[in-house]
Amino acid sequence: MAGSGIFEEILDKDVYKYYADGEWRISASGKSVTIINPSTRQPQYKVQACTQEEVNKALESAKAAQKLWAKVPLWKRAEALHKVAAILKQHKDPIAHCLVKEIAKPSKDAVTEVVRSGDLISYCAEEGVRILSEGKLLVSDSFPGNDRNKLCLASKIPLGVVLAIPPFNYPVNLAVSKIAPALVAGNSVVLKPPTQGAVAGLHMVHCFHLAGFPKGLISCITGKGSEIGDFLTMHPGVNCISFTGGDTGIAISKKAGMVPLQMELGGKDACIVLEDADLDLVASNIIKGGFSYSGQRCTAVKVVLVMESVADALVEKVVAKVNKLKVGAPEDDCDITAVVSESSAKFIEGLVMDAKEKGATFCQEYKREGNLIWPLLLDHVRPDMRIAWEEPFGPVLPVIRINSVEEGIHHCNASNFALQGCIFTKDINKAIMISDAMETGTVQINSAPARGPDHFPFQGLRDSGIGSQGITNSINMMTKVKSTVINLPAPSYTMG
Amino acid sequence: MAGSGIFEEILDKDVYKYYADGEWRISASGKSVTIINPSTRQPQYKVQACTQEEVNKALESAKAAQKLWAKVPLWKRAEALHKVAAILKQHKDPIAHCLVKEIAKPSKDAVTEVVRSGDLISYCAEEGVRILSEGKLLVSDSFPGNDRNKLCLASKIPLGVVLAIPPFNYPVNLAVSKIAPALVAGNSVVLKPPTQGAVAGLHMVHCFHLAGFPKGLISCITGKGSEIGDFLTMHPGVNCISFTGGDTGIAISKKAGMVPLQMELGGKDACIVLEDADLDLVASNIIKGGFSYSGQRCTAVKVVLVMESVADALVEKVVAKVNKLKVGAPEDDCDITAVVSESSAKFIEGLVMDAKEKGATFCQEYKREGNLIWPLLLDHVRPDMRIAWEEPFGPVLPVIRINSVEEGIHHCNASNFALQGCIFTKDINKAIMISDAMETGTVQINSAPARGPDHFPFQGLRDSGIGSQGITNSINMMTKVKSTVINLPAPSYTMG
Amino acid sequence: MAGSGIFEEILDKDVYKYYADGEWRISASGKSVTIINPSTRQPQYKVQACTQEEVNKALESAKAAQKLWAKVPLWKRAEALHKVAAILKQHKDPIAHCLVKEIAKPSKDAVTEVVRSGDLISYCAEEGVRILSEGKLLVSDSFPGNDRNKLCLASKIPLGVVLAIPPFNYPVNLAVSKIAPALVAGNSVVLKPPTQGAVAGLHMVHCFHLAGFPKGLISCITGKGSEIGDFLTMHPGVNCISFTGGDTGIAISKKAGMVPLQMELGGKDACIVLEDADLDLVASNIIKGGFSYSGQRCTAVKVVLVMESVADALVEKVVAKVNKLKVGAPEDDCDITAVVSESSAKFIEGLVMDAKEKGATFCQEYKREGNLIWPLLLDHVRPDMRIAWEEPFGPVLPVIRINSVEEGIHHCNASNFALQGCIFTKDINKAIMISDAMETGTVQINSAPARGPDHFPFQGLRDSGIGSQGITNSINMMTKVKSTVINLPAPSYTMG
Amino acid sequence: MAGSGIFEEILDKDVYKYYADGEWRISASGKSVTIINPSTRQPQYKVQACTQEEVNKALESAKAAQKLWAKVPLWKRAEALHKVAAILKQHKDPIAHCLVKEIAKPSKDAVTEVVRSGDLISYCAEEGVRILSEGKLLVSDSFPGNDRNKLCLASKIPLGVVLAIPPFNYPVNLAVSKIAPALVAGNSVVLKPPTQGAVAGLHMVHCFHLAGFPKGLISCITGKGSEIGDFLTMHPGVNCISFTGGDTGIAISKKAGMVPLQMELGGKDACIVLEDADLDLVASNIIKGGFSYSGQRCTAVKVVLVMESVADALVEKVVAKVNKLKVGAPEDDCDITAVVSESSAKFIEGLVMDAKEKGATFCQEYKREGNLIWPLLLDHVRPDMRIAWEEPFGPVLPVIRINSVEEGIHHCNASNFALQGCIFTKDINKAIMISDAMETGTVQINSAPARGPDHFPFQGLRDSGIGSQGITNSINMMTKVKSTVINLPAPSYTMG
Repeated sequence: MAGSGIFEEILDKDVYKYYADGEWRISASGKSVTIINPSTRQPQYKVQACTQEEVNKALESAKAAQKLWAKVPLWKRAEALHKVAAILKQHKDPIAHCLVKEIAKPSKDAVTEVVRSGDLISYCAEEGVRILSEGKLLVSDSFPGNDRNKLCLASKIPLGVVLAIPPFNYPVNLAVSKIAPALVAGNSVVLKPPTQGAVAGLHMVHCFHLAGFPKGLISCITGKGSEIGDFLTMHPGVNCISFTGGDTGIAISKKAGMVPLQMELGGKDACIVLEDADLDLVASNIIKGGFSYSGQRCTAVKVVLVMESVADALVEKVVAKVNKLKVGAPEDDCDITAVVSESSAKFIEGLVMDAKEKGATFCQEYKREGNLIWPLLLDHVRPDMRIAWEEPFGPVLPVIRINSVEEGIHHCNASNFALQGCIFTKDINKAIMISDAMETGTVQINSAPARGPDHFPFQGLRDSGIGSQGITNSINMMTKVKSTVINLPAPSYTMG
Repeated sequence: MAGSGIFEEILDKDVYKYYADGEWRISASGKSVTIINPSTRQPQYKVQACTQEEVNKALESAKAAQKLWAKVPLWKRAEALHKVAAILKQHKDPIAHCLVKEIAKPSKDAVTEVVRSGDLISYCAEEGVRILSEGKLLVSDSFPGNDRNKLCLASKIPLGVVLAIPPFNYPVNLAVSKIAPALVAGNSVVLKPPTQGAVAGLHMVHCFHLAGFPKGLISCITGKGSEIGDFLTMHPGVNCISFTGGDTGIAISKKAGMVPLQMELGGKDACIVLEDADLDLVASNIIKGGFSYSGQRCTAVKVVLVMESVADALVEKVVAKVNKLKVGAPEDDCDITAVVSESSAKFIEGLVMDAKEKGATFCQEYKREGNLIWPLLLDHVRPDMRIAWEEPFGPVLPVIRINSVEEGIHHCNASNFALQGCIFTKDINKAIMISDAMETGTVQINSAPARGPDHFPFQGLRDSGIGSQGITNSINMMTKVKSTVINLPAPSYTMG
Repeated sequence: MAGSGIFEEILDKDVYKYYADGEWRISASGKSVTIINPSTRQPQYKVQACTQEEVNKALESAKAAQKLWAKVPLWKRAEALHKVAAILKQHKDPIAHCLVKEIAKPSKDAVTEVVRSGDLISYCAEEGVRILSEGKLLVSDSFPGNDRNKLCLASKIPLGVVLAIPPFNYPVNLAVSKIAPALVAGNSVVLKPPTQGAVAGLHMVHCFHLAGFPKGLISCITGKGSEIGDFLTMHPGVNCISFTGGDTGIAISKKAGMVPLQMELGGKDACIVLEDADLDLVASNIIKGGFSYSGQRCTAVKVVLVMESVADALVEKVVAKVNKLKVGAPEDDCDITAVVSESSAKFIEGLVMDAKEKGATFCQEYKREGNLIWPLLLDHVRPDMRIAWEEPFGPVLPVIRINSVEEGIHHCNASNFALQGCIFTKDINKAIMISDAMETGTVQINSAPARGPDHFPFQGLRDSGIGSQGITNSINMMTKVKSTVINLPAPSYTMG
Repeated sequence: MAGSGIFEEILDKDVYKYYADGEWRISASGKSVTIINPSTRQPQYKVQACTQEEVNKALESAKAAQKLWAKVPLWKRAEALHKVAAILKQHKDPIAHCLVKEIAKPSKDAVTEVVRSGDLISYCAEEGVRILSEGKLLVSDSFPGNDRNKLCLASKIPLGVVLAIPPFNYPVNLAVSKIAPALVAGNSVVLKPPTQGAVAGLHMVHCFHLAGFPKGLISCITGKGSEIGDFLTMHPGVNCISFTGGDTGIAISKKAGMVPLQMELGGKDACIVLEDADLDLVASNIIKGGFSYSGQRCTAVKVVLVMESVADALVEKVVAKVNKLKVGAPEDDCDITAVVSESSAKFIEGLVMDAKEKGATFCQEYKREGNLIWPLLLDHVRPDMRIAWEEPFGPVLPVIRINSVEEGIHHCNASNFALQGCIFTKDINKAIMISDAMETGTVQINSAPARGPDHFPFQGLRDSGIGSQGITNSINMMTKVKSTVINLPAPSYTMG
């Protein structure tokens, strides 16, 4: 259970503490932020509403801790991360419990999120050891006019303090995918968790505390965006921002200043289905890709673009599968659970109603109870409907019938989102040519979009983000170059 | 001579045209911007004052050209760049002539700048061929729980339209160091030259025109910063900003949005001299590092931090050399020429007067005629003087005497600039330990700071910039990742 | 014309000189080796029969030259190679002329070989600059128990003297593909050209002479294998052997000792044709892959494995194309010319007769005049025929009909050769699965096997060779590692 | 204790079994090989004298196991190696016990060897995951004349069966440094342990057995070199030989054929001491480098080359430390213990006597009891003495006084050995210039030669070996390249 056992100390009465300078603390604000359970729509948890002064202190402490941490041998940094991975996996149940209550994630998926996060931390640890321990040795005589009297030793060094802002849908996994690369690279981290998911995040941070990380190296600040949001992202003590979420990211990038940014802001991933596709494979991938966690995933399939000649057959297969999805409580491991908030539910409903008015075919009856929306496939969607372009982040999937591959590619490239996309075809030439033409960060051939495996590069183009993630790219992004040039009085040709 | 011979077509009466969509054009504004010769303080050239509408058109044209260029084989891109390098070197004299007149660069140095720019373009061409032609093939089974049924093909792709903003001091070289990496990587370029140096820049761009680059791929927009500066840097059609210059860069980074930034904004490079240093070597490097091009270089030595015990001896050697520097006209290849503008000259004088009042020792008499300032070594400078911290960008160099290495490192790290630094010592252990402790992008051991050779990484920390330059890093910076993942129905173990 | 113009000095009466220590020389043996024109079967050229003593001297001179060359700046090495590339291309005609006369290569192909060799040299030059100028900087603290007090600077250094032994079929191209990587990496080269092709090789070497390479850096020793073959390959002065040819390579590898070997020894490249293949594409590729230069290519298609259901259709298409091949003199640019020697022609005939006896279907009548063999497709070949396994190195191609993909893969993997192979299918899953299963160095999907483009890796498995070629791999192969470890009295954490 | 507890099953009465096909077996030869304890000169252990037929079976089984192992996901291979590392560390004591008895290794060092071997296995596991999971994606259009219609996917694939032959001095560590890279890369391994050290090796192999590695994947064949030595190294079933040892390696390389070789064959590592060196640091490093494990290390300091002016001072410091070395039984953790065999002791005595006759200064009295030789520093050694050039592999260290740095470098480069060397000087310029001039695989600045840390490159030049070791290089060496080229009907420009 959340807040019990080893997690007892992170709770002060009914309000979860924030974490700074190696301690669990109560905010001087005397205020708290309430977290609503999406399923019950009742208050579930409370967290501290931190003040700007508390942010300042956390950043100061982060800077100081970082200076020391950067001098800890790589193998010891890795050892510490392996330790936190083990603790996290050991305490997966109470953390998963938070996910069920805060974001209505189905139980099993919640446990999987925590376990997968442990794996990610360990992989980061070992990857970081390798990335950080190898620099370049460059010599001067490759450039015209130079002799080899300069040896340049170029190393990767940490950026300093990383501000990590994960989204509500994977508050543990998308937090550690920022924290672990940052730490192994020698940075410190200030985590600003999403409101929904904050308590899971605090539990996860406690695992770092239990693993004995130096004080100040990681802190977790909860509070109201209006109070501390801009304050954090514009803070001169921040040396890097890693953000996953929605449009807020664009606003952040316009204020952040001369700071490396890693942003992943959402997508409208298209699934292009050609005439020679294996339709059973497509249907399974549409279900998995479009309805997992009720469609609340950046890399969810968000629009199906299917060749008219196979559209009826495909829709029939998908409808059959949609109708078997279990709808209900996350505690019962239902496939479809309440979406994260009432405003989200209303937004989704708005898209559905717009499609209805404009003549889309409803493959199921539309049904909503509170935040719980029954899964819905919308056929014959056309480009004039909002749902053809906007991201519902819910269990509602539009199908657009196309008459040529070009039409599909054009729809995909006309979107301001450009995270991933997928193509189903057996033909090797078409698969590669369409992948080339799709202007998204990743194109999946014969599978639904997916962030993982976590060591693959992961990036969005256009409004879907900046920078590339995935373990290797994130670690590299969280370093910069420093060079030492040894200037010699005579050329240095080893063994010449 | 500027504007003659093959360059005739870039001139409209006495106003230089701007370049867009493959053509030399006159601005619809009907206005021009006047360039003052720093030596004579008289008007030298005029360039078009372009309008925002003309900026829009250049960017549109750049986007269209980029789409086609990205499909040109790498070897042909390289071939085109080799061609422009040859044309540039062939016409080095008229271009160098502009540099002499616009920025008072000594003749020989002006020629060297153009030739070195040709070398840089060729090196970029070949480096780009290699960087762009090699992606990664990643398999899924390294991450726990995965079989090898996913093959990820990760490529480097162009960013799109690169906005290149070079500074006045190397208006040709620091333009091509942005343009050539951008082009070989498949981007198009909009160049906004500095006002001083704009005409040299236009000549250089004409070499690209003559080499037959496709229309729209490169354009050059001149005008007033107040009119088109922010308009350009905040333009949604810009996909990357590469800027070298001063504080403006910080302002740009706060407005630019979700766009990759490469910024190099100035430095206050320290020269730390230990007791065991070869003082003749140090003195030569201080002269070369501190007074070349009258100190108007980002990587100029801008403060000498010398151990008290060798300070007298070092100052004596440096003074002797300073006194031999030839002061006068750039046309006569003098060592010290007029600084770029009257405001610059006055700013420098302000620093000198402040130092005088606070008791610095003047090793030479201070002398200024118009924009021409005689070279000056200021001894016994103390941290309370402005010149201990501010960048004169002129032929005025402060010496601070230190009593410990730590004092030197502390001064260096207390600056908000952090571009390069240098250490003079014979001791291998000290050299590396001090280099480790100096928090600057590069540390030179036993030589003055230097941007080159151009394939070395070059970067500033703190307020000195973001991103790393040098040919390899610039090309990489001007690409992003796209991945195609082939999902297979069964594991794929090559040769298993 | 061979031996005229700038090449006049390489000829002594009717015997071509050998090249050593920067000079064209006559062997003290007083003997020569005669080269027979394959088309006329008459003596065409004579070359020196060098002695073992002359080999010794060339190797001594190579060692001395290498020591100096390794200290020549990389950009100068590249410059010299660009120069030789230009000279080679300029004098392509007389060199191509030798190829026509010595190895009966069709005129146009002969010219192409020389031009492509120039491109290869230039590409090597630039690739080498990059490979040689970048080493690794490793730190000690990634390994458990270590602090960061050791900095390891690992560089690539030359091997020393490279013995290059190219085969008769590409005596220029496969010579420079060994020489250029060797030289740019700082090695010297002793070239032992094939007897057929020796004169083309000597002409090519003269281009290095004309480009002003230092004396001794490259030498070219002609002579009888029985006299100097083993003497060269077992010589203690040789630090690397790069060999392309036949079975001799296996013998060399058993005698060579502790010397890096790069060997490419022939292949029996299979072409697997699935039912969904584009048969016109397959037929064109079989013609190009199987009959170019009369099948005398390592990467020629040497056996077609076609699914029974499409075999008739495919054979029909191929036969139609075979029948259009022009047979005759290389001077007339015929497609099919005389094979390299009478012994080769007899060997091919042996394979054909064996197939005839065992019941293969002859799609054309077998015809041979001297060394000229008419192109022949053999259908219904079975595994008990020699031609199913042996490499004819002539214009004779067996077709084996298969009933399953597995049968094709099994045939391919049962061969002791394992250079390349190709698969024709549109299906992405099958293409990759079959490529995985084929145990050859390279598998081409939907194209005939090919060595190029020259920067791709190229390698044979099993008896087809050791090491990987291609420009990048060859340069790397011709270097070794040297490391310098700086041990510090205290940990060195840059910027820590 | 050896052969007890979990190790009981590897013993058959008083003879240790050999390991093949996943089982501990008794040789059909009915014969055994006796291992003499170097300290007692009495028989200590017996191992099976395997037959050629048993070798054949082990190789067959290795081939079959390798085919399956190459299809095991990388993370599972790593998991299995982490498991064996844990088992090895857990059972360090009985394995170390064997080392004490078989090779007279001091107890503590014996334990350290086992523990360090566990670390090495784990590091290999994680390094291998990274090396094997990343291939290259190359495109065709970088080479002149090509469009981008070919995508080359180049992967690293296993070599097949690796024959691992470690030496007596680190029979566990130098075995796992071959086995772990081989296995993680997808190879199988046949281990031929040294006679002295065979029992430790068998214990170590049992840890792989206990970890559940598939049968046949690793086997361990003991026996007489005369019976199975050449048979193994010339066996057609062997695809790679990794050998550490003495001159035998050169003989192996002359017979092995077309098989990748990794050989490390001994050294005569010089220690060059300049006038400005920290003599206390030098003295400590000479003791550690020259006398650890009684000098029986490839990277032991084997000759001191000291500038005459500091020679007296240095010798005095070293002598004082030598005199404090504890001589006696390995069970008592003495610094100096019996050398490995009587023949070795006699060889060392021969070198000492030769030096005595030719006038070397004995800093200690020469003393030997059985295989136990008291540590001895020989001053004023001259190039005409055998010990100036030969490797004693015992606690006997020659000092040569030099009058110039060049003299030292010359001595170093005149040796046929070229493994490592070290330089002691504070001067950065001299350190690098001398390192450049020393033609050895590694040069240590200001520390004794050392193989580790184990991820650093480690290689010998000339007769000291071929190939580079260290974890990363070994894994790479135990793979080869396979490429799949996708040929497309039209150019493929991703996102063009």
